Amino acid sequence: MKEQSRRAFVKSSVGAGLGLGLSGSAPKELFVHHVYFYLKNPGSESDKAKLIEGLNKLAKVPTIKFVHIGTPAPTTRSVIERSYAVSWLCFFNNLMDEEIYQTHPIHLKFIEDYSALWEKVIVYDSVGPKR
Amino acid sequence: MKEQSRRAFVKSSVGAGLGLGLSGSAPKELFVHHVYFYLKNPGSESDKAKLIEGLNKLAKVPTIKFVHIGTPAPTTRSVIERSYAVSWLCFFNNLMDEEIYQTHPIHLKFIEDYSALWEKVIVYDSVGPKR
Repeated sequence: MKEQSRRAFVKSSVGAGLGLGLSGSAPKELFVHHVYFYLKNPGSESDKAKLIEGLNKLAKVPTIKFVHIGTPAPTTRSVIERSYAVSWLCFFNNLMDEEIYQTHPIHLKFIEDYSALWEKVIVYDSVGPKR
Repeated sequence: MKEQSRRAFVKSSVGAGLGLGLSGSAPKELFVHHVYFYLKNPGSESDKAKLIEGLNKLAKVPTIKFVHIGTPAPTTRSVIERSYAVSWLCFFNNLMDEEIYQTHPIHLKFIEDYSALWEKVIVYDSVGPKR
């Protein structure tokens, strides 16, 4: 290995190992925010479509790095919970970006405009290394 | 727009819009499989570490397109469920790839070697458009 690339390698490896971001690389952790929405009218396709419309607007919050809007898959093993109407999954670089999202005007407007649709939400926030 | 690129654009847009994959591009849907593990010994850091070790092996199932292993974030709003020990999130291109995963030897070995650690799992499978 040439000296120059060896140094770059060591710097990048040490930085990654210590989570210091010495090399200015991508973040080492990922904050996963997963929300399951249960509708007041569980059978209403129209309410579900409205909620999905709202979530597509919510997806524009700038700190969101990745987003997926889903509905229950056809899988039915006993351990699978499938009585929710809509799944809202998003990734953030860190907790601070998720906190910005929570109070972002787009989020507040989403709650104002669409919260009448749901009966309850269950939220799972998880953090772990980015692979 | 030149005729050739206009045609390619129309073809690709129509294909994407109808979900026909006319242009041979990436899949239009994403299958999201999210499992929350609750340990028999919820306070055992050693059991949690063992489970994470197992999940890192499980991550090698070839039909998995993306994987994230996490633990509860420090967020504590009332709607947040945080009594699970480990979050296992993975993406598949489609239901068939998830079914291959369920019966893959690596998965069966994972269950054999590590299932004694958990008390229960809750699974959410969701499908929705790839963005």
